[in-house]
Amino acid sequence: MRIDLRETAEYLLENDDYVFLCHTSPDGDTVGSAVALAYGLRSKGKRIIIRCGDEFAKDYDFMFADYEEPDFEPKRVVTIDVADNKLLGEKYDALYGGRVDLCIDHHASNILYAQRVCLEADSASTAEMIFILLGLMNIEITPIIASCLFTGVTTDTGCFRYSNTTQRTYDIAAKLVGLGADSYNIIQVFFETKTKTYAALERLALDTMRFYFSDRCALICVTRDMFEKTGSDDSETVKLANIPRQIEGVLVGVVMRELEDGSFKASVRTHGDIDASAICKRLGGGGHAGAAACVIKAEKQQAINMLLKEVEAEIDTHNIY
Amino acid sequence: MRIDLRETAEYLLENDDYVFLCHTSPDGDTVGSAVALAYGLRSKGKRIIIRCGDEFAKDYDFMFADYEEPDFEPKRVVTIDVADNKLLGEKYDALYGGRVDLCIDHHASNILYAQRVCLEADSASTAEMIFILLGLMNIEITPIIASCLFTGVTTDTGCFRYSNTTQRTYDIAAKLVGLGADSYNIIQVFFETKTKTYAALERLALDTMRFYFSDRCALICVTRDMFEKTGSDDSETVKLANIPRQIEGVLVGVVMRELEDGSFKASVRTHGDIDASAICKRLGGGGHAGAAACVIKAEKQQAINMLLKEVEAEIDTHNIY
Repeated sequence: MRIDLRETAEYLLENDDYVFLCHTSPDGDTVGSAVALAYGLRSKGKRIIIRCGDEFAKDYDFMFADYEEPDFEPKRVVTIDVADNKLLGEKYDALYGGRVDLCIDHHASNILYAQRVCLEADSASTAEMIFILLGLMNIEITPIIASCLFTGVTTDTGCFRYSNTTQRTYDIAAKLVGLGADSYNIIQVFFETKTKTYAALERLALDTMRFYFSDRCALICVTRDMFEKTGSDDSETVKLANIPRQIEGVLVGVVMRELEDGSFKASVRTHGDIDASAICKRLGGGGHAGAAACVIKAEKQQAINMLLKEVEAEIDTHNIY
Repeated sequence: MRIDLRETAEYLLENDDYVFLCHTSPDGDTVGSAVALAYGLRSKGKRIIIRCGDEFAKDYDFMFADYEEPDFEPKRVVTIDVADNKLLGEKYDALYGGRVDLCIDHHASNILYAQRVCLEADSASTAEMIFILLGLMNIEITPIIASCLFTGVTTDTGCFRYSNTTQRTYDIAAKLVGLGADSYNIIQVFFETKTKTYAALERLALDTMRFYFSDRCALICVTRDMFEKTGSDDSETVKLANIPRQIEGVLVGVVMRELEDGSFKASVRTHGDIDASAICKRLGGGGHAGAAACVIKAEKQQAINMLLKEVEAEIDTHNIY
């Protein structure tokens, strides 16, 4: 059943004893939105625990400064920014995937696995929805809540650079700053800080950049020996994802990175009408029109070829010469 | 005489036949603010010409889509975003530097050379001031005006990443998007587009990065042979300026680039209390607390040493270990 933000507010105020679930490979939006909503509902006397199939990176530690975990048996299951129950990870999908009471999400690709789905596909982030939701519940947005939401708003828009950014995004950012969000430091941490190991990885990665289809596609491929050489790790490659698309004239930017099991995760970023999620869907992945991902179980050159084949098919459907 | 935005609005509406002057090495704020104000006043029947000591880059062409140059002898001289009459360039400093009727600016380092100075040092950009000024004059902000101002707002805040960004910055950005600013494309052009030649230059530049003072300072040095090798040019090095400061733990990031005459221009970016303009002032330059520049007439290693000496002096005054 699809429900709107007002009905979601009513549901959350009427029930209690929630488990909030984030998606695996947690980003600023799933974590920030879940923690912000938890703080907000706690101020209304509700009990909430937050769970995620993967550990939260230390960059998110500040969000949990005021978090205490009550001890209770969850009665209601709420997923936050989770488009597919598979994204709960094996453990939580098995535990809760089949009985999600409410899903709050902004991914157009949401498979509607929950009993109640509050989905705003034109919202740049789930955090924007939570901001409005808190207002509907008359919950005060404290500085820590504002900081959690500001993290979601910025990380899901690439700091206001993606095409999903709207007037509402800036408007909510302004209000969150006014409410005490630590905006400058959040942006520094998530967008303006590179570790020395990442900087070294970036240099190696740039050397692998190749161009295809009359320079309309640029592709970087990061292999595990590069992580070893630089002392960098998987988590840092996320920041590489936008680099190929930044090159003038490139419509499809791809970053492939070798996973521990030897398969390759492809992060696809597109411009204009080129649909990144269409490319990734054909390879078993998904995402947004401008940013999507998939995992290809093949050795390096074959994985690249499989990905490029789908890129070419997608470019061809748009008759771009 | 210092005047406020209301008095500035009155002055602009009472007078006519303006020459608007931008600063040399024109950036999005000086150009966008000047063109936006010109369009606005033109709708009130005023005549304006815009001049700059350097040519405008082609990225600013879109601003002039609706610009027509009337033929008249300027009666009032207005400088926009110009902290020092020397920044008018030799020609316009000689012509107008001694008789500037009004200066609209946001640089704390403004030397107050104009007869009337409208200065808001806590404004992130001159464009923010122009936005308010247009409102005070009851001038409609058309989509092209909104786009000009959005360019100034974003380029002077590094797309909302610098510490000068305030609640007002986001609030004005929201309003400009609502008024039809072409926000996505502007951000793509100024922040998300690299030419292939720039990408090549960046790789070479990254290889020159060195760390000093227990890794609190990172320095890149770009020489003219790198421009030749990559087919890149001077104008593209501006985009390198933030890279060294992005490294974790770095408080002072420096990009030096060799100018045509063999001297070196240093762009200094700092974090926290470290004052970039203090560093550059001692070498004859200037700017903001977080971003400043100077030109050093010396050969490469000597120029680097001179700059590092001032960086060390500035770090030392803050007792940072």
